[in-house]
Amino acid sequence: MQFEYFNPTQLVFGAGSLVRLGKLAQQYGQRALIVTGGGSVKRNGTFDRAVKSLTDAGVAVFECDGVEPNPRITSVKRGADLARAHQCDLIIALGGGSTMDAAKVMAAAALYEGDPWDMIIHGQPDPYVPTQALPLITVPTLAATGSEMNCGAVISNEDTKEKSFIHNACLFPKVALLDPELTLSVPKDQTAYGVCDLITHITESYLNGATNTPIQDRFAESVILTAMEYGVKAIADGSDLEARSQVQWAATLALNGWVNSGSGGAGFPVHMIEHTISAYHDITHAVGLAIVNPAWMRFATRQNPRKFVQFAERIFGLTAKNPDDVDCALAGIDRFEAFLKSIGCPTRLSEVGINDGLLETYAKETLRIIHDENGNLPAKPAMTEADIIAVLRAAL
Amino acid sequence: MQFEYFNPTQLVFGAGSLVRLGKLAQQYGQRALIVTGGGSVKRNGTFDRAVKSLTDAGVAVFECDGVEPNPRITSVKRGADLARAHQCDLIIALGGGSTMDAAKVMAAAALYEGDPWDMIIHGQPDPYVPTQALPLITVPTLAATGSEMNCGAVISNEDTKEKSFIHNACLFPKVALLDPELTLSVPKDQTAYGVCDLITHITESYLNGATNTPIQDRFAESVILTAMEYGVKAIADGSDLEARSQVQWAATLALNGWVNSGSGGAGFPVHMIEHTISAYHDITHAVGLAIVNPAWMRFATRQNPRKFVQFAERIFGLTAKNPDDVDCALAGIDRFEAFLKSIGCPTRLSEVGINDGLLETYAKETLRIIHDENGNLPAKPAMTEADIIAVLRAAL
Repeated sequence: MQFEYFNPTQLVFGAGSLVRLGKLAQQYGQRALIVTGGGSVKRNGTFDRAVKSLTDAGVAVFECDGVEPNPRITSVKRGADLARAHQCDLIIALGGGSTMDAAKVMAAAALYEGDPWDMIIHGQPDPYVPTQALPLITVPTLAATGSEMNCGAVISNEDTKEKSFIHNACLFPKVALLDPELTLSVPKDQTAYGVCDLITHITESYLNGATNTPIQDRFAESVILTAMEYGVKAIADGSDLEARSQVQWAATLALNGWVNSGSGGAGFPVHMIEHTISAYHDITHAVGLAIVNPAWMRFATRQNPRKFVQFAERIFGLTAKNPDDVDCALAGIDRFEAFLKSIGCPTRLSEVGINDGLLETYAKETLRIIHDENGNLPAKPAMTEADIIAVLRAAL
Repeated sequence: MQFEYFNPTQLVFGAGSLVRLGKLAQQYGQRALIVTGGGSVKRNGTFDRAVKSLTDAGVAVFECDGVEPNPRITSVKRGADLARAHQCDLIIALGGGSTMDAAKVMAAAALYEGDPWDMIIHGQPDPYVPTQALPLITVPTLAATGSEMNCGAVISNEDTKEKSFIHNACLFPKVALLDPELTLSVPKDQTAYGVCDLITHITESYLNGATNTPIQDRFAESVILTAMEYGVKAIADGSDLEARSQVQWAATLALNGWVNSGSGGAGFPVHMIEHTISAYHDITHAVGLAIVNPAWMRFATRQNPRKFVQFAERIFGLTAKNPDDVDCALAGIDRFEAFLKSIGCPTRLSEVGINDGLLETYAKETLRIIHDENGNLPAKPAMTEADIIAVLRAAL
């Protein structure tokens, strides 16, 4: 194991903790830009409660609403302009992963004179690397991306049909304020997509990672098992605060580095392929993941079955004939796809109206945005254009 | 679940990473005080390699050696005086838990005019709370305490026979540099004590924690299972770098907050009782833990068997008749004590020459240093003086 870990975000977790927002915020700024998404936080009163907590603490509030589900660079620019216009010294993201991702890049873009798209990888040879950002507080209203406690963000460019990412230490939130009560009103489908999203974060590092990482493996399995058990409960009864709490904690852990530190993942191939598809079709990110992940698993397990066998045994209680028992591995993947379907996730491209017309384009575009020195998609095993097409064809 | 987590320490992990010390250190200071223990780092060349890395990077090196196994406040004062005398702007701990703990308090004491014992809890009504410390880098040479990546320290006062602690965010190391190669020369007995120490850190939070913490429970079990498996290998063959790596990673995880965040532990009763015993008898901390922990477990399980049953099932593969099966729980504790004995840890006071002459004194002293509003030791269940005496008597 050779690895580094650093995450300076203060995590505050607990039902009812939204009332602490103002006191937490006043440590970092006096003029906050609240970034929100499609308006559910307005309808359910969360926005007003956040504003009250802030103003009670003497923090002035300005607003950037309307961040899209796949957040666009145009929204980032708009938010950065608002932050500058109002001389904001603090950004607060109140919403789901899209809102948090956009807010992160706004925080850096507010202190950058150039085009914020310069910061996003999208295959450019020499992306601009920000060194500073306004302080950021994340208040997730959806348990899904884990964006609340990491330094990554995914942004789309609607003009170029590109969806790509930034990963930079200056984007770590100062505080991640997790109040599971805020997720009680999330509808069933979005709850299920969140569960799929968080599990996929885990499987990417678990299945593309180094060998001989016993603690990380068990940590990963811990989160998956808990997300499946309590995810089902949260979908069945959205008002189950205990289930909402466990799912939210699982979502944060799935991508804050605790699970994958040391596993040295070769890549996030399912995410990279999905980004291309949702850039072209604007489908929900987790729906794309639910479609690509089982197909990718079946591709990868044939070359590298051992970890998939462990997954089948420890997650689904199957028994392998030997540590490389591909049949057992494939049975585990079948069980996983069945789980995704059981909670309401589409698992085939045809279910979301995507046919085989552009498979080659998706593969080429995925590789244009990210590839290794041989031109392949970083993964275990690395994927050629033909491999990506084959995976997508299997997912039709 | 209601909790907070914050840990800004940069973790650098990997065999051979000691060569990076200089480059990491030069980010934080130019005049480093290296704190060491009994001299093993001098004999095995680690000290010279650390100094070379530092001087190659332009960092001047000063030295505070001879920190005791149960580090004394007099050593803390001596180190703080040395740091001031040499105008050090950085502290580097190169050694085991004692060295790291002493170095942490030196880092704060160097910027404090008063007596550093003021900072240590030891039952005083109004301890001094430091707000600043010199930057600190920890380089552990022993896998045990987890001190390398947290903000706690335990210090003894030889004059008053007190052993107590400080826990303060300003004591977080800037960097924890973990090079498992540095632990290859640790003798069998110290290796075993390290394994016992780290497992006890886990059991304290696991067995005294909140109910319904499925992820934290599985995280805890992940670390215990890995520490047992690879601990046995590291004890059998000290040159097994893979085993040393897994044990070191387990030790760090056992007390950096990842395992117990959210489990809301009621206390660390085994540690609190052990501190009193080792303050009186200067026995190795982990030896005291190996003695007190099984006896405490047998006491606690009768009132609160469920988590002990889970421990018996998930760690030792036992099968309970029901979730509150005390017989199963006790069988698990027997297996745990047998494991400790099998790796060479004493598990009875009589094995280290301690008899029943001072049991009441140990109990009173433990409660003097820390107690809840009812005068009992914080734990699950809270412990009266009679409870502590009964546990110690059972451990004779």
